[in-house]
Amino acid sequence: MNRAVILASRPAGIAQAENFAIVESDSKPLAEGQIRIRNEYLSVEPAMRGWIADVGNYSEPVAIGSVMRALAVGQVIESRTGDYQQGEWLIGWFGWQDEAVVDPATIVRRIIEKDLPRSLALGILGINGVTAHLALTKIGKPEPGDTVLVSTASGAVGSAVGQIAKVLGCTTIGITGGPEKVAQCIERFGYDDAVDYKAAGLEDAIAAACPNGVNVYFDNVAGQISDAVYPQLALNARVVICGTASFPTWDPWPIGPRVERHLLVKRARMEGFVIFDHMANYESSVARLADWVRSGQLQYAEDILDGMEACPDALAGLYRGENKGKRIIKL
Amino acid sequence: MNRAVILASRPAGIAQAENFAIVESDSKPLAEGQIRIRNEYLSVEPAMRGWIADVGNYSEPVAIGSVMRALAVGQVIESRTGDYQQGEWLIGWFGWQDEAVVDPATIVRRIIEKDLPRSLALGILGINGVTAHLALTKIGKPEPGDTVLVSTASGAVGSAVGQIAKVLGCTTIGITGGPEKVAQCIERFGYDDAVDYKAAGLEDAIAAACPNGVNVYFDNVAGQISDAVYPQLALNARVVICGTASFPTWDPWPIGPRVERHLLVKRARMEGFVIFDHMANYESSVARLADWVRSGQLQYAEDILDGMEACPDALAGLYRGENKGKRIIKL
Repeated sequence: MNRAVILASRPAGIAQAENFAIVESDSKPLAEGQIRIRNEYLSVEPAMRGWIADVGNYSEPVAIGSVMRALAVGQVIESRTGDYQQGEWLIGWFGWQDEAVVDPATIVRRIIEKDLPRSLALGILGINGVTAHLALTKIGKPEPGDTVLVSTASGAVGSAVGQIAKVLGCTTIGITGGPEKVAQCIERFGYDDAVDYKAAGLEDAIAAACPNGVNVYFDNVAGQISDAVYPQLALNARVVICGTASFPTWDPWPIGPRVERHLLVKRARMEGFVIFDHMANYESSVARLADWVRSGQLQYAEDILDGMEACPDALAGLYRGENKGKRIIKL
Repeated sequence: MNRAVILASRPAGIAQAENFAIVESDSKPLAEGQIRIRNEYLSVEPAMRGWIADVGNYSEPVAIGSVMRALAVGQVIESRTGDYQQGEWLIGWFGWQDEAVVDPATIVRRIIEKDLPRSLALGILGINGVTAHLALTKIGKPEPGDTVLVSTASGAVGSAVGQIAKVLGCTTIGITGGPEKVAQCIERFGYDDAVDYKAAGLEDAIAAACPNGVNVYFDNVAGQISDAVYPQLALNARVVICGTASFPTWDPWPIGPRVERHLLVKRARMEGFVIFDHMANYESSVARLADWVRSGQLQYAEDILDGMEACPDALAGLYRGENKGKRIIKL
């Protein structure tokens, strides 16, 4: 029997546990050219909010009744293609389920870092790390000496951004929620400073932490946190729009201070980044990240939940800010 | 005697006639290294709003009591530098006055296009044309076949943007106010289509005029017009922030629909452009524009007012939308 988490109903806002259901079904037969995978780790991503929403987005919405779309780490247990052999470990779009019968097109890559934990393929050596690395370098274009400010600074993407910017010679400032995460930013992820968005006077705190202005703002949240950042942009600043986690929904569309004047006066740039556009650079990025992990320059945090029963509430928990690292389900 | 228009008081919002005064004074002596210019044409720019404002901007605010900052076309009538000779025609930062005693650093360029009207140095062959050309090509990066949408489409910058984009092989759509300007956009400036922002249903009209989405939005206005454009951005769209003419003031800071989600979902880019950053490309840009004027590919419109008495109300008149082309004062 194969257990799977399906999308049972489309949420208004963040998907809650009741929007999912765990169902059992017989194992599917394997067609020519397909592979059977047994999943070991399932990923939980903030971006799942968008994958589930029924409004225009950067990917097709997950259909009601179908297995929740997710990256997973799994092992080939049966193969009807010459390209993948039984026993190989892969990461790919295998979904929130025990066992996936897939075409090779769903595979992202082989896990070749046998000296490192396999779960990293879902975090620092996966979509989070690669997003951090490519979005920072391709859009943020940090130069040595730049001040790089990161929202969700202790999160799976943000913590990697801060550390990579540090490796590249930048001054790194984090924005995060609460004194515990502020300490984690500085002590674990090596930020030069971190500010607490839950404390009063965020704009003043950012200005004080970034006395030469913000050259690169790596943003995962939008909203009031970003509103406090924009006045501090330096000349020719780059704003990487990597996520909009502040808003559970864009219907009705949220309003806020207009950005055009900041961009004009500072000759600044804002640009959206979606990892799916950059898969050609994925393998070389993972190789770079793996080297930084091995050298100790890139620390990571994982938040591993146990068993498929943890899936339905796992996404809502992310948006409640419960996790202290990359959230993963271990089957 | 030298007549000059001084900034008499700092306006709240758009400067009105009463914020200026015309004063007379004796001609200044000429120091070693200086040049005396007799102005022929004075420029009136929407950007003067920013030059006068006392809030942070991209140039030092004009001081109360000093001559209003302006580009002008003038002739050298006396020179104490070997680099410029009596009789030469120049464009530079000579101010709203009859006669300017200046250092060579205030000179933008010699007017070398002796076959074309000298007033063009303030418009299509000046800051407006060069802004249109460089902002469109450097930030907008239009490709043949792209849809280029332009706000203030019949204005001094906008009309040049539309025509240059056409020369570069794009489909050009203008946004302008009223049926007369819509007709001017299509008949005079060669836009493929133009929409009237004063009519109802702007977002639908833009969507209908840009069925493949907007690849380049060249924006001079911000505000509600831009709000109607952002949902129509195509994948990887470029938004050129060249002006924010919709807002007479940014104090209090205006609010509107947030842009981050559009930029993320469409992997789009917004970037501010200020011509002063690009003076190294000025001369080559003017040469290109002059060729297009000579070949008839670049049409222009001028709105020439008579005499210094027209200066004090000329800027307010621009913001009332009175002009039908580049506004210039002829002395």
